[in-house]
Amino acid sequence: MSVRPLPAPSPSPAPAPAPQPARDRTATQLSTRFAEVRAHTERLAAPLSGEDQTVQSMPDVSPTKWHRAHVTWFFETFVLAGNEPGFEPYEDTYWFLFNSYYEGVGPRYARAERGNISRPGAHEVGRYRANVDERVRTVLEQLDDGTLDRLAPTIELGFHHEQQHQELLLMDIKHVLSRNPLRPAYLHAPLPSGAEATPMCWVEVEGGVVEVGHDGDGFCFDNELPRHRAYLEPYRLADRLVTNGEWLAFMADGGYRRHELWLSDGWARVQAECWRAPLYWEEVDGTWFEHTLHGTWPVDPDLPACHVSHFEADAFATWAGHRLPTEAEWEHAASLHGPAARRHDRATGAPEAGMTLHPRAAAGTSAGTGAGAGLRQLLTDCWEWTSSAYLGYPGFHPPQGAIGEYNGKFMSGQMVLRGGSALTPGTHARLTYRNFFPPGARWALSGVRLADGPAPARTAS
Amino acid sequence: MSVRPLPAPSPSPAPAPAPQPARDRTATQLSTRFAEVRAHTERLAAPLSGEDQTVQSMPDVSPTKWHRAHVTWFFETFVLAGNEPGFEPYEDTYWFLFNSYYEGVGPRYARAERGNISRPGAHEVGRYRANVDERVRTVLEQLDDGTLDRLAPTIELGFHHEQQHQELLLMDIKHVLSRNPLRPAYLHAPLPSGAEATPMCWVEVEGGVVEVGHDGDGFCFDNELPRHRAYLEPYRLADRLVTNGEWLAFMADGGYRRHELWLSDGWARVQAECWRAPLYWEEVDGTWFEHTLHGTWPVDPDLPACHVSHFEADAFATWAGHRLPTEAEWEHAASLHGPAARRHDRATGAPEAGMTLHPRAAAGTSAGTGAGAGLRQLLTDCWEWTSSAYLGYPGFHPPQGAIGEYNGKFMSGQMVLRGGSALTPGTHARLTYRNFFPPGARWALSGVRLADGPAPARTAS
Amino acid sequence: MSVRPLPAPSPSPAPAPAPQPARDRTATQLSTRFAEVRAHTERLAAPLSGEDQTVQSMPDVSPTKWHRAHVTWFFETFVLAGNEPGFEPYEDTYWFLFNSYYEGVGPRYARAERGNISRPGAHEVGRYRANVDERVRTVLEQLDDGTLDRLAPTIELGFHHEQQHQELLLMDIKHVLSRNPLRPAYLHAPLPSGAEATPMCWVEVEGGVVEVGHDGDGFCFDNELPRHRAYLEPYRLADRLVTNGEWLAFMADGGYRRHELWLSDGWARVQAECWRAPLYWEEVDGTWFEHTLHGTWPVDPDLPACHVSHFEADAFATWAGHRLPTEAEWEHAASLHGPAARRHDRATGAPEAGMTLHPRAAAGTSAGTGAGAGLRQLLTDCWEWTSSAYLGYPGFHPPQGAIGEYNGKFMSGQMVLRGGSALTPGTHARLTYRNFFPPGARWALSGVRLADGPAPARTAS
Amino acid sequence: MSVRPLPAPSPSPAPAPAPQPARDRTATQLSTRFAEVRAHTERLAAPLSGEDQTVQSMPDVSPTKWHRAHVTWFFETFVLAGNEPGFEPYEDTYWFLFNSYYEGVGPRYARAERGNISRPGAHEVGRYRANVDERVRTVLEQLDDGTLDRLAPTIELGFHHEQQHQELLLMDIKHVLSRNPLRPAYLHAPLPSGAEATPMCWVEVEGGVVEVGHDGDGFCFDNELPRHRAYLEPYRLADRLVTNGEWLAFMADGGYRRHELWLSDGWARVQAECWRAPLYWEEVDGTWFEHTLHGTWPVDPDLPACHVSHFEADAFATWAGHRLPTEAEWEHAASLHGPAARRHDRATGAPEAGMTLHPRAAAGTSAGTGAGAGLRQLLTDCWEWTSSAYLGYPGFHPPQGAIGEYNGKFMSGQMVLRGGSALTPGTHARLTYRNFFPPGARWALSGVRLADGPAPARTAS
Repeated sequence: MSVRPLPAPSPSPAPAPAPQPARDRTATQLSTRFAEVRAHTERLAAPLSGEDQTVQSMPDVSPTKWHRAHVTWFFETFVLAGNEPGFEPYEDTYWFLFNSYYEGVGPRYARAERGNISRPGAHEVGRYRANVDERVRTVLEQLDDGTLDRLAPTIELGFHHEQQHQELLLMDIKHVLSRNPLRPAYLHAPLPSGAEATPMCWVEVEGGVVEVGHDGDGFCFDNELPRHRAYLEPYRLADRLVTNGEWLAFMADGGYRRHELWLSDGWARVQAECWRAPLYWEEVDGTWFEHTLHGTWPVDPDLPACHVSHFEADAFATWAGHRLPTEAEWEHAASLHGPAARRHDRATGAPEAGMTLHPRAAAGTSAGTGAGAGLRQLLTDCWEWTSSAYLGYPGFHPPQGAIGEYNGKFMSGQMVLRGGSALTPGTHARLTYRNFFPPGARWALSGVRLADGPAPARTAS
Repeated sequence: MSVRPLPAPSPSPAPAPAPQPARDRTATQLSTRFAEVRAHTERLAAPLSGEDQTVQSMPDVSPTKWHRAHVTWFFETFVLAGNEPGFEPYEDTYWFLFNSYYEGVGPRYARAERGNISRPGAHEVGRYRANVDERVRTVLEQLDDGTLDRLAPTIELGFHHEQQHQELLLMDIKHVLSRNPLRPAYLHAPLPSGAEATPMCWVEVEGGVVEVGHDGDGFCFDNELPRHRAYLEPYRLADRLVTNGEWLAFMADGGYRRHELWLSDGWARVQAECWRAPLYWEEVDGTWFEHTLHGTWPVDPDLPACHVSHFEADAFATWAGHRLPTEAEWEHAASLHGPAARRHDRATGAPEAGMTLHPRAAAGTSAGTGAGAGLRQLLTDCWEWTSSAYLGYPGFHPPQGAIGEYNGKFMSGQMVLRGGSALTPGTHARLTYRNFFPPGARWALSGVRLADGPAPARTAS
Repeated sequence: MSVRPLPAPSPSPAPAPAPQPARDRTATQLSTRFAEVRAHTERLAAPLSGEDQTVQSMPDVSPTKWHRAHVTWFFETFVLAGNEPGFEPYEDTYWFLFNSYYEGVGPRYARAERGNISRPGAHEVGRYRANVDERVRTVLEQLDDGTLDRLAPTIELGFHHEQQHQELLLMDIKHVLSRNPLRPAYLHAPLPSGAEATPMCWVEVEGGVVEVGHDGDGFCFDNELPRHRAYLEPYRLADRLVTNGEWLAFMADGGYRRHELWLSDGWARVQAECWRAPLYWEEVDGTWFEHTLHGTWPVDPDLPACHVSHFEADAFATWAGHRLPTEAEWEHAASLHGPAARRHDRATGAPEAGMTLHPRAAAGTSAGTGAGAGLRQLLTDCWEWTSSAYLGYPGFHPPQGAIGEYNGKFMSGQMVLRGGSALTPGTHARLTYRNFFPPGARWALSGVRLADGPAPARTAS
Repeated sequence: MSVRPLPAPSPSPAPAPAPQPARDRTATQLSTRFAEVRAHTERLAAPLSGEDQTVQSMPDVSPTKWHRAHVTWFFETFVLAGNEPGFEPYEDTYWFLFNSYYEGVGPRYARAERGNISRPGAHEVGRYRANVDERVRTVLEQLDDGTLDRLAPTIELGFHHEQQHQELLLMDIKHVLSRNPLRPAYLHAPLPSGAEATPMCWVEVEGGVVEVGHDGDGFCFDNELPRHRAYLEPYRLADRLVTNGEWLAFMADGGYRRHELWLSDGWARVQAECWRAPLYWEEVDGTWFEHTLHGTWPVDPDLPACHVSHFEADAFATWAGHRLPTEAEWEHAASLHGPAARRHDRATGAPEAGMTLHPRAAAGTSAGTGAGAGLRQLLTDCWEWTSSAYLGYPGFHPPQGAIGEYNGKFMSGQMVLRGGSALTPGTHARLTYRNFFPPGARWALSGVRLADGPAPARTAS
């Protein structure tokens, strides 16, 4: 998720054909949504000091103030430049510092060096944001309808781009704070507790020739296209995520010591990095604790296991006698058996008391969410590892221009995750969304949903 | 291909169910085939000194004498042990030294350390081979029919295992000799020259719901199973491999300097390892030379480009305005449009004058092989990179036992190659064969066949 | 200088014998000096934001706020603990975070992770400092004379320890800011310019059996002891440091490309790290610029060359046909031919306009400082690399206790530098001071003074 | 010892001034000595197969056949070229392959790649040796006296160079064979056993102004010059080397686990490489075994501890309450208190039964070798680590020409060892010899002799 293909419009005056229809076409609608998205980023950064916003705890992580500036650079580059009369960049060097991977637009500063940039500070980044916000609002007010129509997809893309970075901001600061021996909390609110996860049930799916990919209604990224046919054998999916209790059983049964459970590269990683539990787990005097955005708490067996790599997810599934779903299986089943109601938007509001930035138990305490309610926790708790490598869909073709050169460039060596997490902005999640990370990555809020063939005869357990 | 899942039988007395029917069931037939396969390995090693057979020029490469001993260890472990009356290993320590990856059978010696093993020497390995050969022959003569039936699939597996290592032996010694500033040749015979490659033509394929995977007639590895259905959109494949001349055009057009052509991980590799041509190419005073098993020769523009990584194959296809085929596309097209005649077996004979251990030009000089003859060079010249990640087929399930633990373990981070090469033993190649290497690997005899959508409107070129 | 042996007292109640007499024995004197030293650290940090104070740009560098807290931890641990009635640490975890290398006192946080600590922030570190300052002052007022006598050497050690870190703080922030593409200045004051360096002259020294090491008058570190005899052949030293102009001549003559000028390890470093100029030099359109604490300026040929490694210093001396002095030669010559007046204290004051945090030209514009005035720039401009490895003096014996275990532990693989720099607090420099860094280190303010045998017949040039 | 400064003559026709007088000036004497030295190298290689002679088990190690060819290249380059009428190199490429570090003579093949060179094989190297031997003999017969006088020092240098490589050959093959899980022996003869080491006694030395360095009588390397004065305080040295029994006591007392005993870089190495015993020791079921050139044997407590790094030697000395000697102390004491008789030449003969290629116990079983006989085991058993960094002597000046550029280039980051080992050819050892290795190196036959101040009051123990 840190590096994401974007169907970004060209910054050139010649308009690129809009790949998707935009929902919020009027200037007022765009302006309102712009204000919401931008304000939410600032709410997420509000609990963090300038020092917090500066640290890059590993190359995959970006500092908070970099996220805040980078999404702003996006609007400055792709919306203001070419549309604002007499456009000048807020600060020349920011184009260099806050570009992420659009090498077509200009040289970029080495990713792993982002933590060496102490200036501009968090406060100065805030001024940059305010400046661009004001200018975008002005542009929106002044554009003629034709230009607005042409620009609307780009602006909406900017919304989704910023929402991606909202989740990254939370993922990243979680890692930063976890490396501090003081283990500070991002949010001083307790983890939800007391709820008991229901036993896992299977949801059966028939298969056959099915359709996969985005249907064109509303926004999507280009990697969700084109919608296409695939053939699926019958299968079944677990109705909930694997829990910490189940993960503890895997560990107790030697899960991290038995090479026969692991992919070869996974086993090499287990040994090289001494994995013996999920990323943020720590054993103190025989008790396992988990570092969360809410601080460090004893591991709750009813909560979903999270911050596991694809290698761990695969080893767990092998140990359990099952397997991971393919992304086509996941999407098809979710479209049939997902809950009617869309997700509740945990991460949209401010990080204030009462909010939870952590997956919840599949407790089934309310109607339509318990056992028998189909596939639960689909978009709301953990990203779910699939057994599918991240590759282009049949017929996938990169668009032209600055952004086109990058559309498929991450389609190598990464695995697809589906769903969404407790950190994903609610309006950002959808069933066709393709998230992806290398198989050894653990700092996303990633968990496991088991899959299987339908007939008992095909399963070892 | 260096690390290969094998449906190996268990060395335990309890017979494993034979996964495939064996073709050569009689003791005499098995004995004859055994003699042939074993003798061919020794013929391949014959031009190499003890010193040549000792060197490991990079961790992926194994010394020649290690290959010769490892395939012998296979027969000793999986055929003699448990079937030879009063079995004792030829040498206890060999079980340790020459095991490759069957951790279930016992601890193995670190792969990257194989080049530190000076003893046993090449001559002593020859004695080991002779001893096991003699004992296998004796066992074959003495087994009752029931045991023979049970054991036949294992023995046949041993044949195919040894054939895999015959190709690896040639790949590896090519690398070893290439690291010597003297650039010695393995085989003193000239590269074939004078033939002109025909222009590339497209072969159109309809698609739809097709069947992929081995049909159970004859031997296959478990990763070729189960045969299953897949849905394909219409597509087309090039009728021949990309040539050196075309590769030189790619290079001349900045192919290795234009980041927009490359996958992100590929571009990182280009820079980290300073790639500017295929693996064994070297520029001397403005002329490109290629190190081959026949020594170093000027690059012939009509020969297929080989020793390119998946990253390079993908960048070339992007540059050409086309793409790589999926493995399902490749297999389906090959089953429809491959030449009726099976491949000519270049590498089966002795490495003697007149043999060629290098791909040939798609010259079309004989009937049925020129332009219009369908897909040419399918199994005989270069392994062909596909755009498919190496993963299990739907319904793939590892068998039980020592070997079962490893069947799927390499299904992470590698890409599928299809076809066969000038180094592949002729009886070893088949259309359903799934070879695989990491996307950055270059020391296999790997090349490129382009694919595309059927209609001109969908291609940029 | 980043890792320094300290004759630190034990934190245990049993008093360690005072290794040196202290100059400032009365409580009032100690209190005054304490206030001065502590205030100077805060003045140095004042121009830096919380973000600036957080970054660790390489493992050798520590964040500013870490320096500020670490020197405070020293007083808390070695002065307050055991002497303050009812002592409790300000914050338990600070003992862990701000300990540097006293493993005898407790576990320490990995050096390379210091940049991951966003909390406590710079402001909170300020509160920690104020708290400890207040408590030390109170302890000083209340101690009886006997305890005060016993404690005085420890307190004075704390002064010198903090002064070491004042120089490190400046060295480190220089590196931090240099990694920012914006190249911000620490101090907005121009480099001094216009002064012309005098031609280099030789100062002849006789040699014989001489005495080396601290004579016990005033404070010193334990590595300056014991004073001992050494035998020196006659020699001569340059009267000033090598200049940028001379360094440019070395570069123009292929200094960084001619392997025969370099030590073997040095040449490996030149190639591995692509050295072609001193650390902070950068070529833009054919002109060399130097990043300084005052920002980036064109290289001034009259200023001393600085930020060179021992390898570079040695190669330069070889190129010039001379050599580096031994530390005994340096110390003996400095004791005979150094200027009568002690150094002017550039770095003691606040970093305000008019100050210079950079070496000055050996211009000889005032009486007693020009050519003929003996060895100039001895303690005031650049640390001077010697040809001596950093080892214990004959008879060196580590003291007992928490600190004793570390006294000699850095005596491996490092080279001695002598003198002092424009960043060294004036009261901290002395002729017997032994600074040391690994031969490849470049981020100290290090330069070169040439040495030679006295007679022309012994020099190649 | 693997990389050694040599006062090599220039291959140019202009004669370089002979730095030392040669002992064996007549052509006959030179020819006889040439034959002896050359034959001894071949005797040492005789027990090794072509495969054994090919392996490079770590970058510091060179293959046996490389040693054999490199010393031959030396005679071809520095003796034949320029003196043989119509000289042509035996094989052009050998100049490239078998050059070690004389970059002034031509480009050299990367050291770490030596193990990738399978050709020329061991047999072909033998032919190269025979060819050069014959040609050198012819040249010696035909040279006029003036040329012979000029060339004699170069030829003698070649003898000493080859003797250095004889020891390296044994050190290196020991490492090669130790990496083979079969742990083969180089020499099938038992280790000497049954002798009991006498208790350690101190030999007192007065000190004062002493002379150090070679006195010009006979051959020496340039780093032993010039002889010069040094001042020594009184001291004492152990009369024998530290034994395995004493090392086991160090281990049992937590020697490898107590950071306070170690230099900082040493402790980092202990942890990074998991040191817990000398290099070739291995614990099996609670018993320690040692791999030697005679195979693997239980550790004999009376034999000298060997294959320890400088870091280990220093930690041991600290643990024992003593220290390592400086090289000046070692040389001065050895000149006063060494045994009158020169060493017995273990390694000069053929590696045949009865020979010992391992240090012996300081048993004192014969007259003049037991306790009270002064400093024992001085040149015959283990190289002895000193506390001196390897630097140039006062007045050291590199000679001109191809070799001059390298004379001091290793004078950085290495420590001096003195004496000689059971692998050193007898005529190669002398009291002024300066061997050197990096402080972490362990594959030389290196041990420990303790030093101390003379008076009990100065020692902690």
